[in-house]
Amino acid sequence: MDGRLFEDVDDGTRAAIMRATFEALCEHGYANLTIDRIGDSFPKSQSLLYHHYDGKDDLLRAFLDYLLDHHESDWPEAEDTSPDEQLRALLDHLIGGPDDAELSGFRKAMVELRAQASHDEDYRAHFTRSDEVFRERFESLIEAGIEAGEYDAVDAGEVATFLVTVLNGLVVETVTTDGADPDRTREAIATYLDQMLGRRTDR
Amino acid sequence: MDGRLFEDVDDGTRAAIMRATFEALCEHGYANLTIDRIGDSFPKSQSLLYHHYDGKDDLLRAFLDYLLDHHESDWPEAEDTSPDEQLRALLDHLIGGPDDAELSGFRKAMVELRAQASHDEDYRAHFTRSDEVFRERFESLIEAGIEAGEYDAVDAGEVATFLVTVLNGLVVETVTTDGADPDRTREAIATYLDQMLGRRTDR
Repeated sequence: MDGRLFEDVDDGTRAAIMRATFEALCEHGYANLTIDRIGDSFPKSQSLLYHHYDGKDDLLRAFLDYLLDHHESDWPEAEDTSPDEQLRALLDHLIGGPDDAELSGFRKAMVELRAQASHDEDYRAHFTRSDEVFRERFESLIEAGIEAGEYDAVDAGEVATFLVTVLNGLVVETVTTDGADPDRTREAIATYLDQMLGRRTDR
Repeated sequence: MDGRLFEDVDDGTRAAIMRATFEALCEHGYANLTIDRIGDSFPKSQSLLYHHYDGKDDLLRAFLDYLLDHHESDWPEAEDTSPDEQLRALLDHLIGGPDDAELSGFRKAMVELRAQASHDEDYRAHFTRSDEVFRERFESLIEAGIEAGEYDAVDAGEVATFLVTVLNGLVVETVTTDGADPDRTREAIATYLDQMLGRRTDR
């Protein structure tokens, strides 16, 4: 989550609503979230929230779409860095740094929303798309690495699918156990990639 | 979930309560579960449930412990099969077969309970222990495989941790998206193990 995410100059009100939703979700979690609590983080009139969104789930679905659209439009261009560097940087970003309260609150809310997705078609459609977006991104970076001679000719789709599954498992473990160790997962992913992708030019 | 799980001849009432809990949880999920609904699957007097357990969460925690204890005491003995065969059979069992309604209901409930674990210390303690039990089992099988010359001298703890994370990710994806593909994950795990564990004697 970097700050730029919510600085949408063409649509300041929407960006402010999205930021308020993010902050309230991190602080209160899904179960305790209300439109009023989102309103507490919103600098403009709260009636705007009620005007634009039909309840908290409608607003949350818009928020999840907003986040994912930003991720998709925000993949860095491949000009200066190799596919391997981009893949590892993206994984590093998704694994996350040392525990910070905001990331932790956000991940808890995501696990709560995943639980909603088990019986709510709209949330389910979101998480289906979300996993697919990251899967496709990993796959295209691996294919670019093969193309560039950085990687062996592996099954890029299989590796990409596996990476998404590992990241989903890590988020759940981090939120729901005291035994998760993101640094250990980071190392295990690096070992996996080294074993699977083989040839690399610059390491 | 095989049928034997709930045939505890030394403690028939407890086993019957655990079976009733399992059936009600698969059918109703966590959010809609009540002691009365568990009682509907219980052949004896419902008052026994209220007598022994202090609400649905108390009963569910006993149920989760019961399941895990059964897993732990039920690891097959190593006499007839190699560590590699045992590891792959256990993974196969945990990945699960073609979708069946009971397994699907059970996994949905587990994802709901994981979401509870994000803010409930008792559930959190359970899932911490549960992940640890499977991690240790994988690790000891991999170490036995190294000892037996089936595997290269890998970091068994790292591989075991990775496998638990993958399985947790798969459960979440299966329950919360339409894009999960257990057979693809099964193949990716096999590829991972082949790459990581190297030398094998009989394949």
